[in-house]
Amino acid sequence: MTAADKPGEDIQKEVLKKIKPSDEEKRKLFMVVDELLEKATDTARKMDIDIGRAMLVGSAARGTWISGTHDLDIFISFPEETSREELEESGLLISREIAKDAEAFEERYAEHPYLNMRYRGFDVDLVPCFAVNSASCIKSAVDRTPFHNSFVKEHIDELQDEVLLLKQLMKGTGVYGSELRTQGFSGYLAELLIIHYGSFKDVVSDACEWKPGMVIDLLGHGTAKHEEPLVVVDPTDPGRNVAAALSVDKFARFIEICRSYLDRPSLEFFFPKPQKPLNDDEISGIIEERGSSFLAIVFKTPDLVEDVLYPQLDKMEISVKALLEQYEFTVINSGTWSGEDSVVVIELLSSALPLVKKHHGPPIWVRDHSQGFRSKYEGADETFALYIEDGRYVADIRRKFPTAREVLENRLTDCSMGKQLSKAVKKEHMILENKQLCNIRDADFRVFMRKWQKNGIP
Amino acid sequence: MTAADKPGEDIQKEVLKKIKPSDEEKRKLFMVVDELLEKATDTARKMDIDIGRAMLVGSAARGTWISGTHDLDIFISFPEETSREELEESGLLISREIAKDAEAFEERYAEHPYLNMRYRGFDVDLVPCFAVNSASCIKSAVDRTPFHNSFVKEHIDELQDEVLLLKQLMKGTGVYGSELRTQGFSGYLAELLIIHYGSFKDVVSDACEWKPGMVIDLLGHGTAKHEEPLVVVDPTDPGRNVAAALSVDKFARFIEICRSYLDRPSLEFFFPKPQKPLNDDEISGIIEERGSSFLAIVFKTPDLVEDVLYPQLDKMEISVKALLEQYEFTVINSGTWSGEDSVVVIELLSSALPLVKKHHGPPIWVRDHSQGFRSKYEGADETFALYIEDGRYVADIRRKFPTAREVLENRLTDCSMGKQLSKAVKKEHMILENKQLCNIRDADFRVFMRKWQKNGIP
Repeated sequence: MTAADKPGEDIQKEVLKKIKPSDEEKRKLFMVVDELLEKATDTARKMDIDIGRAMLVGSAARGTWISGTHDLDIFISFPEETSREELEESGLLISREIAKDAEAFEERYAEHPYLNMRYRGFDVDLVPCFAVNSASCIKSAVDRTPFHNSFVKEHIDELQDEVLLLKQLMKGTGVYGSELRTQGFSGYLAELLIIHYGSFKDVVSDACEWKPGMVIDLLGHGTAKHEEPLVVVDPTDPGRNVAAALSVDKFARFIEICRSYLDRPSLEFFFPKPQKPLNDDEISGIIEERGSSFLAIVFKTPDLVEDVLYPQLDKMEISVKALLEQYEFTVINSGTWSGEDSVVVIELLSSALPLVKKHHGPPIWVRDHSQGFRSKYEGADETFALYIEDGRYVADIRRKFPTAREVLENRLTDCSMGKQLSKAVKKEHMILENKQLCNIRDADFRVFMRKWQKNGIP
Repeated sequence: MTAADKPGEDIQKEVLKKIKPSDEEKRKLFMVVDELLEKATDTARKMDIDIGRAMLVGSAARGTWISGTHDLDIFISFPEETSREELEESGLLISREIAKDAEAFEERYAEHPYLNMRYRGFDVDLVPCFAVNSASCIKSAVDRTPFHNSFVKEHIDELQDEVLLLKQLMKGTGVYGSELRTQGFSGYLAELLIIHYGSFKDVVSDACEWKPGMVIDLLGHGTAKHEEPLVVVDPTDPGRNVAAALSVDKFARFIEICRSYLDRPSLEFFFPKPQKPLNDDEISGIIEERGSSFLAIVFKTPDLVEDVLYPQLDKMEISVKALLEQYEFTVINSGTWSGEDSVVVIELLSSALPLVKKHHGPPIWVRDHSQGFRSKYEGADETFALYIEDGRYVADIRRKFPTAREVLENRLTDCSMGKQLSKAVKKEHMILENKQLCNIRDADFRVFMRKWQKNGIP
């Protein structure tokens, strides 16, 4: 071990102390799991429903869960020939029966309905799936999970601690999670990286040199071409990229994190200090110092699952930026935040433009169009000047919306932003400018605003 | 004659009354010409210099001069085998001798030295040239003129009046003159258009349909491909485009003039009312109403011939615009004017930008560069924020020059603007902003500023 490795090793040990489940924690977890699996099998039998088996999947099953996480994924697998309706119906029947002993439960909907419950302190999902023969011929998205489970269990050897370290680094730095809100690394992806590289240290030092187009193919069986920055071929399905959800920015961010960590390893990468919300003075100070113009569109967050909400927020952000740019405002930065309310924040070079706007007409030699343009603008009230430039008519005219606020007030609801968001915005929204952003009191929003502050990158 | 032609015909008759030289004017002109030609021949003989002959060229020679113009071009042609030095020397010797009877004279320099004099009320150029066999093997640019002269004289028939009308229309609307200041139609070009189309009316009605790429080849002998919007192949030189100096804007403007004239013919096209200089209130009013920012760079006009001055002014205008755009200012319009002082006027969307400026760095995976960028901007005083966007580092930094004035004060002299202009600007210049433009008292400048007013196009 070199001297340079030493500080990292110490820190990693300290991290593991905090995140590795104790024997007591493990014992308790598997007790609950055994109980649930038994209940599932018993219930199916009593109801005379033909299930393949009930099984634990996910990080709990693989020994890669972080201490204190109390998530259990119990899959109830049905024979492949079961109809979709039967699977859904029987899955729910069994789940509801089990949930009778739960502290609380609710039925949720992904591709199939499933049941989520609070059970003896654990957050349990009871999910029906088809028992297919291979991950490449699944009938439902969740059917893949048991295959992932088997592969990881077979190959993880003694590397669970390494997975824990990598997951915690990703969590601490905000790149963990493959859902659409985060677009980062999934747990399965972290596990595959550890299996491929053999250790936390080797993932981190190799990632420093990653470039888009990086391909990791553990079994050398990849069949498809992928466009994503990182490609990790699924060992259980040669056509699939496990890192498909990873955005280019989270990919870049992870590279940066690895470099910084190797350079100056510290506990903060794993357990960052919580960021303090900005107070009014700090928000005003940022806006004043930059000298740019801030706009915030605020509206009540519609009741949607995150994987529906966040893509609609992204769509709205892009579309509002495009709208403002169409009206010649220059966007510097933007961002979205969502809590009880949702907010799209746009930073503009300026939120006011001069009244004059240059309007390019057709070339003189396109006779009809150019004469039409001329007669429309010549001597019109809205025209400041009409002239020829590069062979075309140009009219300097009165700008319709000289402020960004006016653009939003008149055109915001034309923006494409997804069905539910569009409805929420149409129902009611506020437009705040500059220091009015202080009217948003939510502490988490005020942490989000740190994006506009000096120390954006740890 | 159709009813529609009638008003035009009346107007054209009225125009001709004003611009067609009277018999008395013609008599007087040719008396002076005869006298000058005789003097030239006599002087050469006395000095024992071998000249081919002295001849009148230009519009006076072709009967296409506008009444009141008193310009005479006398060419003294030397045998082709004469050396360049000998031509220049002998040309000047003969010219100086003739100029002894002039009211005033000065020696001027184009490709060759020549003599300009005030002689019995006429503005006379005495120009030495080589008597070459064909316009396609000239030794000096002026050698072409005698060929043009012969061609027009041979083909003009009785069309002099038509030429006069076309020239006056071009003069009245600002498209006459092929010098670099105007980039419009030369007299020879106007003559060829009349010879080709047969009448003023037919030029005007055909020009309404011109498009870039229009080719007129009277003798069908053109040999070269030209990029200019209008190509009129020189009947005396198949490789040359007589309309080479015509800019796309003057081409478009002429098309527009012809359409407007046919639509509503009026004397004003030929004899426009002189435009009144704007007063202080009008200048301030324009600037205030548009809401944009005006900047003027004012400096003493260097002593240069127009064909050198105007290209340098154009170059300066382009280069100042590029400079301001490099610093993220948005140029709406610009223009140059030159009198005793020269002025470059720039209209900006805004002359002030916020302090924050978005500075794009390298992609994260270009390790050396991206780490260099990060260590330069991370925590630096000038940095507002550092973050990753589209896989690249971006730093929001403090803008070096947040006003256009600061850009000009610090970088103007780096602009490429031609040798003499550069010297003049470096020696001394003023930067005026918005209403300070009223400090420029020159009446002609205040007419030029009408460019920013409603009625730019007659």
